[in-house]
Amino acid sequence: MGNTDYVYPSENVERTHRVEIPPPQPFIKTFLYTLKETFFPDDPLRQFKNQPASRRFILGLQYFLPFLEWAPRYTLNFFKSDLIAGITIASLAIPQGISYAKLANLPPILGLYSSFVPPLVYALMGSSRDLAVGTVAVASLLTASMLGNEVDANENPTLYLHLAFTATFFAGVFEASLGLLRLGFIVDFLSHATIVGFMAGAATVVCLQQLKGILGLEHFTHGTDVVSVLRSVFSQTHEWRWESGVLGCCFLLFLLITRYFSKKRPKFFWISAMAPLTSVILGSLVVYLTHAEKHGVEVIGHLKKGLNPLSITDLVLAPPHLTTAIKTGIITGIISLAEGIAVGRSFSMFKNYHIDGNKEMIAFGMMNIAGSFTSCYLTTGPFSRSAVNYNAGCKTAVSNIVMAITVMFTLLFLTPLFHYTPLVVLSAIIISAMLGLVDYEAAMHLWKVDKFDFIVCMSAYVGVVFGSVEIGLVIAVAISLLRVLLFVARPRTFVLGNLPNSMIYRNVEQYQNAHSVPGILILEIDAPIYFANSNYLRERITRWIDEEEDRIKSSGETSLQYVVLDMTAVGNIDTSGISMVDEVKKIIERRGLQLVLVNPGGEVMKKLNKSELIEKIGQQWIHLTVAEAVGACNFLLHSCKPNPSKDESSGTWNNV
Amino acid sequence: MGNTDYVYPSENVERTHRVEIPPPQPFIKTFLYTLKETFFPDDPLRQFKNQPASRRFILGLQYFLPFLEWAPRYTLNFFKSDLIAGITIASLAIPQGISYAKLANLPPILGLYSSFVPPLVYALMGSSRDLAVGTVAVASLLTASMLGNEVDANENPTLYLHLAFTATFFAGVFEASLGLLRLGFIVDFLSHATIVGFMAGAATVVCLQQLKGILGLEHFTHGTDVVSVLRSVFSQTHEWRWESGVLGCCFLLFLLITRYFSKKRPKFFWISAMAPLTSVILGSLVVYLTHAEKHGVEVIGHLKKGLNPLSITDLVLAPPHLTTAIKTGIITGIISLAEGIAVGRSFSMFKNYHIDGNKEMIAFGMMNIAGSFTSCYLTTGPFSRSAVNYNAGCKTAVSNIVMAITVMFTLLFLTPLFHYTPLVVLSAIIISAMLGLVDYEAAMHLWKVDKFDFIVCMSAYVGVVFGSVEIGLVIAVAISLLRVLLFVARPRTFVLGNLPNSMIYRNVEQYQNAHSVPGILILEIDAPIYFANSNYLRERITRWIDEEEDRIKSSGETSLQYVVLDMTAVGNIDTSGISMVDEVKKIIERRGLQLVLVNPGGEVMKKLNKSELIEKIGQQWIHLTVAEAVGACNFLLHSCKPNPSKDESSGTWNNV
Repeated sequence: MGNTDYVYPSENVERTHRVEIPPPQPFIKTFLYTLKETFFPDDPLRQFKNQPASRRFILGLQYFLPFLEWAPRYTLNFFKSDLIAGITIASLAIPQGISYAKLANLPPILGLYSSFVPPLVYALMGSSRDLAVGTVAVASLLTASMLGNEVDANENPTLYLHLAFTATFFAGVFEASLGLLRLGFIVDFLSHATIVGFMAGAATVVCLQQLKGILGLEHFTHGTDVVSVLRSVFSQTHEWRWESGVLGCCFLLFLLITRYFSKKRPKFFWISAMAPLTSVILGSLVVYLTHAEKHGVEVIGHLKKGLNPLSITDLVLAPPHLTTAIKTGIITGIISLAEGIAVGRSFSMFKNYHIDGNKEMIAFGMMNIAGSFTSCYLTTGPFSRSAVNYNAGCKTAVSNIVMAITVMFTLLFLTPLFHYTPLVVLSAIIISAMLGLVDYEAAMHLWKVDKFDFIVCMSAYVGVVFGSVEIGLVIAVAISLLRVLLFVARPRTFVLGNLPNSMIYRNVEQYQNAHSVPGILILEIDAPIYFANSNYLRERITRWIDEEEDRIKSSGETSLQYVVLDMTAVGNIDTSGISMVDEVKKIIERRGLQLVLVNPGGEVMKKLNKSELIEKIGQQWIHLTVAEAVGACNFLLHSCKPNPSKDESSGTWNNV
Repeated sequence: MGNTDYVYPSENVERTHRVEIPPPQPFIKTFLYTLKETFFPDDPLRQFKNQPASRRFILGLQYFLPFLEWAPRYTLNFFKSDLIAGITIASLAIPQGISYAKLANLPPILGLYSSFVPPLVYALMGSSRDLAVGTVAVASLLTASMLGNEVDANENPTLYLHLAFTATFFAGVFEASLGLLRLGFIVDFLSHATIVGFMAGAATVVCLQQLKGILGLEHFTHGTDVVSVLRSVFSQTHEWRWESGVLGCCFLLFLLITRYFSKKRPKFFWISAMAPLTSVILGSLVVYLTHAEKHGVEVIGHLKKGLNPLSITDLVLAPPHLTTAIKTGIITGIISLAEGIAVGRSFSMFKNYHIDGNKEMIAFGMMNIAGSFTSCYLTTGPFSRSAVNYNAGCKTAVSNIVMAITVMFTLLFLTPLFHYTPLVVLSAIIISAMLGLVDYEAAMHLWKVDKFDFIVCMSAYVGVVFGSVEIGLVIAVAISLLRVLLFVARPRTFVLGNLPNSMIYRNVEQYQNAHSVPGILILEIDAPIYFANSNYLRERITRWIDEEEDRIKSSGETSLQYVVLDMTAVGNIDTSGISMVDEVKKIIERRGLQLVLVNPGGEVMKKLNKSELIEKIGQQWIHLTVAEAVGACNFLLHSCKPNPSKDESSGTWNNV
């Protein structure tokens, strides 16, 4: 063979393909492309292209005010549907609003205020057709617990109220900024598993809190964890009020039965939708007729007539309470954003229209900012209410307007009717709503499909129930992040084998009939190579080679000559990854083996080229497919080396 | 075609391969496998397998005390080499030790103590043969700045000293725990780019601090950022001492020239290695002869004779200073760990032996714990000293023992000789050492190969130089983490095309001659699908389809019928990813298209199966290779649909 040890196969065997280095791009172009992919993956500006300026202006207006898009096409038929849906959700919104406001330690009337202004804003700015705006239990509880640490709602109700407005304002600012800065993907880091566990935990905690109302207790723990609550409940059994308890259990039973019935027969969704209002009316009548308010059954009492007073001057924008307000705003903001976005997305999936997450965030943000100026607290798109809206056949966001107008009438004329509404009915309404948030089926699905996701879910649940809502949230986010980091730090590597009678090479663990090629170790790296995993990959590849050599030694097969790295799945590489490949090459060569690369992607080839690693490895050792690489190695094995050729290995190549 | 719209291709075309679902594994087995891959990727227990108990005991001892492994094979020739190397590094260690102790605001003698006990511990426990143990500038500066915020070193030197021991103790505990808990990969998250920037920044800051010594200033800012330091220097130009300045510049010049010379001729490495000690001797002589200490040239003064006093009782283990000590310990610990591990790894690469990162961490930890008990402060394996050790031809860790013994002799007999050593010489030594840490070539390499890595590097640099060392570190870690998250949140997707005269499908951006197949959109997803990217991928895939349909509309080609997702590079998927695939399937079907999956890996198939998505998609729409999928689609396109067949597309399939 002349002077060289190896003869490049192309001189003997036809070599049809080579791995190409993508044409060089100016840095600024790549940079802009990356920016676009990071912040504008849905390409929202696409429709603006090739349009005259006037049309662009209209499109821009429509972008921020989506109602401009559908309003011209709005018909009477749409309105009929929206009217029914709007009245239905209003009947749910009024008792729920009052209940959640109590949960947040805020005046009950705030629940009604919050169902008036924010839905109007959302109707103009939101792009979901099914979302019904309102307050939610988890954010209410979080507000109570985070603001409660700073100010006692009973001792200083005015300051507490103003802090709630301020927190709402900052939640809105935060939400709108996320949307404007196209950072919506931050919400994606709260994984579905996290949210299932967190929501179930929060629902459990909220239910536990209702024991106060149901049992008519006057003293209650400030803690939200299950241990404190149960200790508080059972340490004062003598204080339990049976009147309250009986009333509560009756209404809870009524609500649960209607829920169960509506779930079985979706056509009768309105039964469970109307049940809370019916309970309120029945409960108020019972108290009014029996004067139960004088026998230990607490009632709402006086509610002020009239629309939302302005609260813009009430915002607390100075220390010492500013930090708490901002913190509460950001945390409740992101939690309710996650719920609202998820709800909007689910229903848009059903009806097949597109929702722009960032645009929705701007809408949520603006609606909360407007809310904080008009005596509302944090609102979002709750799942239960939106589902009722969807089932009631809503067509557009006009159902939110109808709901707002209904609530407006209630505020103007009907508030005295709630005077005798017993708190225990509100507790029953909350418990019944919360039970829907404990999605044990989703948890079981997680267990079945992905055990790690189940662990994440349960950690969030346990954190919320045994710690506090904040602790649960921190644990959930930390575990989610840890999971991302673990994903990155520990990618999978596989040994590939040849499928019989083919030129296809696949993972031998997945394909039991794939068999290895003597003298050649084929490894697949299943993830991008970055600083976070390059040390691991180097050690793991070395271990694969060790294990293969041990195996060969004990079995007496052809000794190992080539290590083929299939880079198909290596989408990207950074400088640490490049060093790793260089080091692996050195390790392999020092053992007298040859490194062969297969199918590096565009980015990888570019960086291998720039770091001059292609020349070091040798262009002839970089192949387009595993089959070609194995072919070239086999050719060299059998023509230059004294190894006896084996049927199975040479067969593969000769078949071509 | 009878009752069915589609006929499964296998009835007409031979279908040879199917994607297999890996055989089900019991949960506990998968779990243990994952645990092993996460914490024991290098399989350190492999050598214990199939060994008798006595042998296992010896192997276990050797694991924790690697000197047991090489000591029996130690020869006189090895000792000769180690003796020379040890004396060389001692001559570097003594002046550097004193300088860095001054930098940490600690008594200079601590630098000598720290070069005595820790090297002995490392020689027994460390597995690197080239690492030379000693203190480092960056950790010294960090100690000074972090402890200095709590206690003034001049006002309360004893407390400051005790806090330094305590911080060293916690650094040791932290390092050893990382190793014992197999969490060494945490260090990998400090990427190479981050470390280059951080080190260069720290070196700049350290050099700036030396202006105090060089110019003989008495008052100096406590800040470390470039603005405060330059303002402090230039606001008191009248205080500059020319004697000090001239002496400093001369020695700096001398040190730089020897460094440059040794770099050009590596054989004369010992010239630059001896230069610091030579400077110290020359400087001391000059001061002693000229009595310059009376003319503004500060000297070290009295150094206590004798070995390290015990300091175990000096540890501050109670509030209020405990938190600061722990924080300082953890931060300096991880920084010096990163340097030590990287140094050990580099030299083991050169000499082709294996280093176990976790074992090294235990060794570093134990050496710092032992150090904190014997009046030493934080030590690690500094790059400069280890490089000198390597160049001097060290064979084993015995060179560290030789260095320790040399330092011991110095401590016992030679400390009075340092009385007249001028501080300005120490400053010159520090500056000359620091310039080696500014690795501008590495930064330029980053710029050339990976712009993002360059940005990370520069952010760390700017953060350290204009903010503070801590700010720079936080920025660097935050950016590194952000980068990991961005990597995960924004994977690449590509359109694949057919390479001419082949059945190979590759990214059309990389392979300019690859052409698309009419009626079929082939997309490759280049990363695992997780909660963090599933929303992005759904939007991006939808956009690819939109763009393809737009393109087809304008060009009048065969309308789109199939969307083929090549899952080869999707190494793993979680439940959010599964939902995403389900949603994409619905979106695609609602547009009247058909989703085809290609080559899902083992994990992906397992989860698709468990979530019953395989049945939903249809086993017949999951193919092993893109070529087979395209073949099946083309067959259906041309046999069932009225589309005219095009040459290029049918050619691909007919060629087979």
